[in-house]
Amino acid sequence: MGERRLYNIAVIGGTGAQGSAVALRLAAAGHEVTIGSRDAAKARAAGVELSACAGKTIAGSDNSTAAGAAQIVFLTVPYSAQAATATALFDVLHEKILVDATVPLATDKPARVQLPQGRSAVATLQELAGSAVRVVSALQNVSAAHLRDRQHPVPCDVLVCGNDPAARDIVIGLCADMGLRAFHAGGIENSAAAEALTSVLIAINRLYKVPGGAGIRITRVAD
Amino acid sequence: MGERRLYNIAVIGGTGAQGSAVALRLAAAGHEVTIGSRDAAKARAAGVELSACAGKTIAGSDNSTAAGAAQIVFLTVPYSAQAATATALFDVLHEKILVDATVPLATDKPARVQLPQGRSAVATLQELAGSAVRVVSALQNVSAAHLRDRQHPVPCDVLVCGNDPAARDIVIGLCADMGLRAFHAGGIENSAAAEALTSVLIAINRLYKVPGGAGIRITRVAD
Repeated sequence: MGERRLYNIAVIGGTGAQGSAVALRLAAAGHEVTIGSRDAAKARAAGVELSACAGKTIAGSDNSTAAGAAQIVFLTVPYSAQAATATALFDVLHEKILVDATVPLATDKPARVQLPQGRSAVATLQELAGSAVRVVSALQNVSAAHLRDRQHPVPCDVLVCGNDPAARDIVIGLCADMGLRAFHAGGIENSAAAEALTSVLIAINRLYKVPGGAGIRITRVAD
Repeated sequence: MGERRLYNIAVIGGTGAQGSAVALRLAAAGHEVTIGSRDAAKARAAGVELSACAGKTIAGSDNSTAAGAAQIVFLTVPYSAQAATATALFDVLHEKILVDATVPLATDKPARVQLPQGRSAVATLQELAGSAVRVVSALQNVSAAHLRDRQHPVPCDVLVCGNDPAARDIVIGLCADMGLRAFHAGGIENSAAAEALTSVLIAINRLYKVPGGAGIRITRVAD
């Protein structure tokens, strides 16, 4: 697992509910975090607002500047924006870890599993990016509501998929920094399981009216 | 939820590790269980062996006889046999519930998610069968080792998918009879999540050396 390191991290889509919670938790753990947005002014404003809460400065800039300056880049944008947003950043992502939290939800029927062309959205991005970008899939199943709530333990484990085990290790460490229990879950194509599971959790939330959202725990694995 | 009912149940593939554990648990809960196999003699022998353990007679016969006499049919055969085995039974499955536990594992790489044509194996069977058969997906994630072990609680919840909520309700009740916590998890296409998750659990078992196999718990849902 190695020693704990602090990184320069960009959170693309960090003005959204999920991204801002990720930025907050990473900054509170001591990492240097920059929020990325298409609109740099909006990113800076979000950074200022989150900084007070994190107890540490969170910067903001346009996506390309944020990703270019970072060692590790989180992608937390809606599925409809995933490919275009990431593709525009490939030039500055060489050899970097891109943590993709994308879930391919159907806008009209999010509780229904609909994998694009039957495949994982994140695995598809890894193919698009080529092996120069170390794409790691994570955070699909954790609701933004639970991520925002730093007063309670997050009731959801994180499945971490990717073709580079060392990159997965680093992301598992970042999840631990965020207070999340995370597991190696296999190659990037296994992201399909996490992506599909989100629709199942949405179905369960609707049927059972789960406050904050249901999650998953992996059982029988030693901490 | 309704009152608890006892059913005549066939377990097709009931001579295997998963099927025999299902047959045992259902019989021990009071249901009339018949093991189905291509080989009727083998099915009867398995029934005799399991009866002693269940404290109740478990019958055995060929697949078609077992399914024809049952109200509810469990399908617990390897993926490679799923479509052919089920198709041969469609005639005797009209209006019945077919509980399909199939996981489309790649024989050479079971820890790698590989949904057939990117789709759920069980949803594909529902299409093949047509709406006259009430296909319900269940039990994909519970390891046979845990199912066999009646001395300890099974450390895994069951995701129950299907297009007929009343049929799902009945299957959730049967899971409860087997000592398993089960949840409505949406329409039959959502079975893709459970099927893919099994490969992730196999990957986790390998990486973390989990005794008996890892499972999942759905968090935050009231029991």
